[in-house]
Amino acid sequence: MGVLMLGGMQDWSLRVTHLIDHAARECGDREILTRWADGVIERTHWAGVAQDARRLAQGFAALGLKPGDRVATLAMNHHRHLATWYGAIGFGGVIHTINTRLFDEDLIYIMNHAEDQVLLYDAQFQGLVDRLKPQLKTIRHFIVFDDPDGYPAFVAKQDGNYEWHQGDERDPCMLCYTSGTTGNPKGVLYEHRSTMLHAMAEVAPGVFDLSATSVLLPVVPMFHAASWGLPFAGAAAGVKFVFSVTNDAPTLHKLMLEEGVTHSAGVPTVWLAMFQHLDATGAGLGRLRLVTIGGSAAPRAMIERLMGMGVRVSHAWGMTETSPIGTMGAPTANWDDLSFDERVDVVCKQGRVPFGVELRVVDDNGHVAPRDGKTSGRLQIRGPWVIKRYFKAAADATEEGQWFDTGDVSVLHPDGTMQITDRAKDVIKSGGEWISSVELENIAVGCPGVAEAGAIGIPHPKWDERPVLVVVRKPGANLCEADVKDYLKDRIAKWWMPDAVLFVDELPHTGTGKIQKVALRAQFKDFKLEA
Amino acid sequence: MGVLMLGGMQDWSLRVTHLIDHAARECGDREILTRWADGVIERTHWAGVAQDARRLAQGFAALGLKPGDRVATLAMNHHRHLATWYGAIGFGGVIHTINTRLFDEDLIYIMNHAEDQVLLYDAQFQGLVDRLKPQLKTIRHFIVFDDPDGYPAFVAKQDGNYEWHQGDERDPCMLCYTSGTTGNPKGVLYEHRSTMLHAMAEVAPGVFDLSATSVLLPVVPMFHAASWGLPFAGAAAGVKFVFSVTNDAPTLHKLMLEEGVTHSAGVPTVWLAMFQHLDATGAGLGRLRLVTIGGSAAPRAMIERLMGMGVRVSHAWGMTETSPIGTMGAPTANWDDLSFDERVDVVCKQGRVPFGVELRVVDDNGHVAPRDGKTSGRLQIRGPWVIKRYFKAAADATEEGQWFDTGDVSVLHPDGTMQITDRAKDVIKSGGEWISSVELENIAVGCPGVAEAGAIGIPHPKWDERPVLVVVRKPGANLCEADVKDYLKDRIAKWWMPDAVLFVDELPHTGTGKIQKVALRAQFKDFKLEA
Repeated sequence: MGVLMLGGMQDWSLRVTHLIDHAARECGDREILTRWADGVIERTHWAGVAQDARRLAQGFAALGLKPGDRVATLAMNHHRHLATWYGAIGFGGVIHTINTRLFDEDLIYIMNHAEDQVLLYDAQFQGLVDRLKPQLKTIRHFIVFDDPDGYPAFVAKQDGNYEWHQGDERDPCMLCYTSGTTGNPKGVLYEHRSTMLHAMAEVAPGVFDLSATSVLLPVVPMFHAASWGLPFAGAAAGVKFVFSVTNDAPTLHKLMLEEGVTHSAGVPTVWLAMFQHLDATGAGLGRLRLVTIGGSAAPRAMIERLMGMGVRVSHAWGMTETSPIGTMGAPTANWDDLSFDERVDVVCKQGRVPFGVELRVVDDNGHVAPRDGKTSGRLQIRGPWVIKRYFKAAADATEEGQWFDTGDVSVLHPDGTMQITDRAKDVIKSGGEWISSVELENIAVGCPGVAEAGAIGIPHPKWDERPVLVVVRKPGANLCEADVKDYLKDRIAKWWMPDAVLFVDELPHTGTGKIQKVALRAQFKDFKLEA
Repeated sequence: MGVLMLGGMQDWSLRVTHLIDHAARECGDREILTRWADGVIERTHWAGVAQDARRLAQGFAALGLKPGDRVATLAMNHHRHLATWYGAIGFGGVIHTINTRLFDEDLIYIMNHAEDQVLLYDAQFQGLVDRLKPQLKTIRHFIVFDDPDGYPAFVAKQDGNYEWHQGDERDPCMLCYTSGTTGNPKGVLYEHRSTMLHAMAEVAPGVFDLSATSVLLPVVPMFHAASWGLPFAGAAAGVKFVFSVTNDAPTLHKLMLEEGVTHSAGVPTVWLAMFQHLDATGAGLGRLRLVTIGGSAAPRAMIERLMGMGVRVSHAWGMTETSPIGTMGAPTANWDDLSFDERVDVVCKQGRVPFGVELRVVDDNGHVAPRDGKTSGRLQIRGPWVIKRYFKAAADATEEGQWFDTGDVSVLHPDGTMQITDRAKDVIKSGGEWISSVELENIAVGCPGVAEAGAIGIPHPKWDERPVLVVVRKPGANLCEADVKDYLKDRIAKWWMPDAVLFVDELPHTGTGKIQKVALRAQFKDFKLEA
């Protein structure tokens, strides 16, 4: 046989419905529970979620929705939301999770741009929905998750005798908008194939380390970058899911202990509140063994404390455009030979790529930087779960070779470990050198009495820009500028020392909890530094 | 937008070359070492293997090989063999690993049927190659791995300035023949896509649990079901590979301790020999933490001993036709609540499917059996890394719905755990009931003084068949038929008691170390049982 032939293996499409089928079949009785806002805990399992999903798919099809149509949600984390993902995807549709924390004008833009046909939402957002409704042009059906006449009635109307839609594995299955800091939000259209490969990669020990023994409490909302893909990866691994509609530390902590949570994932602020709760109660973290922190960099002190309690900490880096996992911290090959401090050093960085994606750093002249742990530049990424083109965009979002520019500034270490040094637009340029505002902030929050800190560059007659640190004090703390500078002086290069430390009651945040640098800079636009 | 659109994510083909590129880029200096037969340890790393692979691909292309052409190997486990896999696949070819333990006529049939163009082999097989050569019709180039004029010279001739062949992800990349117990060996043609999905699934904590911290010693030969896919999964995870050309217990044990082996994988007999070595030396197993046992079922006593030493034991089940992972034992959801004995019970079964494949049990009437842990029948499997059609076959090997019949007899438990009860053809049928020869053998080897045991059905005038147990005594042991029966009587159902226990010096084995039931039955074909 001299001619090229196909191999001899089976046909199997990378469709997301395989995930829910697998979970229902192989771990159908593995529990999935929701703690509602009123404290009631409702328990179902993968078979129950799958049954709901099938009825939802049937219901959406009965409403006249066609493959490719968008089903929107405005909801917190709960099992009905989870079932809706699989239901929307199951009839060939696209689940569109909407960030509940955006401003009205963004929400209206997003829903109209997405041409959502159905909106499922939590009753707590009734006021918001009523306010937006007159301006929503495409939504024909509104379904309340936690109203007996809403979701439960919609599901009960169907008999579940429905076969998943079969389509191409490059078909879209999910739409997430980036909470862009400039311009209109942009939609990222995930595919069945990209979602499946991402889910399979996430299960790995070096990523989320998920298996049948995992009990996963995702604090990261399902409306934020697909809850980092965990609703998909969790099905592949057959985890027990613990969902909570409210995310205050006492509630989360109680769930962790009572439900035996082993894995959690969320932004750093979750852990700041948790530490206060642990301090106040003297409690431990139960069976918790892996905490994944993303969204923004975790302060070193946070990482030290969690690791000191015997919990593995993983720094994740990614963005909506990368499904979102770009890198994940995990024990390195030389882990056993490292001291505690050296391990913390590793965890403070952003980790390494899972198999599938690839990184490079490009300097201002467009040259690919060496992986020397020193040369910083714009971080670029490519791979099967990285964006090619924004939804409805006229051109690709990528450069030659499919490289997508992340807007982050980073270095790559020789072993592939990535370290974010800054968002490109947040870098402070002083006398031709770059000062990392992120690094400055991370060090500053280690100072006793500092609750949160934002560093911005203020125009300077001589140095172009100089850093100014804007600080929120901890309740009861009484520190002054000199205290902060004193703390910083042995911890940063001399020329990184902020020219001023200013105190405010609170910092502006984006919908996803990051410090809104644009707003912060605007707030201090009239602040003057002297030469 | 009412029309169906493609999603917005990047193009990324599931080609195996991504694996070696990833390993070279992200863990280029992670060690790969070979202990040659003479005791010399040669060390390279993923970057070195990748460099060799690129030069090999270039060299194969320079020989005039075209995409789809087969490159055969007749070799033990070593890094040159590994590089050859990626080199053969890299020019678009198909790596064909040949089981060195087959009979001459099978080897000749296989190589001619595969139309191999090149053969790379270990010098230890020179005599074999010389013997076969006159009858090999298609092989144009012979390259000796461990001869300076062979592999090293072939690699050195190229500059490595070569781009991997790009092709369809359904193209073939590997060919493995089953050591069929009846008829001619049959070729299974793995695809790039099937191999990639299998590798990604294997990395999972519930399967081989591979990460950057893993040090993997695959005892299972690279010519046996692709060394269970580990050369691919190991690249995805970036493990340190420890290869050994010889597999005696003292050598393997020394490597385990000196190289910090964390993961090993092989047939049960490896561990029988290892236990004797541990008994003799009083040594431990170092950093070993996961032993995967497959090929045939491990006796309970073996599992207990390893688990008692703090090592996780996974029973794997699969076959060449399934790439080969069909199921894998791993801690179940309720693991923390189980006693040691209950955990051993779990591990004695064959585990559960990784995400991707699906099992069912079909009874003699063609009905799908319930997952009740009781109803046994023919085990069938389907999924992305399961065979559709044997190489050059005129028809598919699957039934309706892509189900492939494995020839094994098993039950499925309610939680999806699979338990092999027998090979369909090895089942002993007594008075209309089935007796599991595998189970009988596994219990019998727990009897003090029994080294190995094979159970066969002997025709019986009244009962159709009755079991006879053929036993190899341990060195120095002196047990008789009554001793064995006495041991069995409280451990098996009365009607399972063998009608005779016969003692032999050794049992016939297949090339892969399994008891050759066909030969054993032939050996005792004149043995008569009385009514």
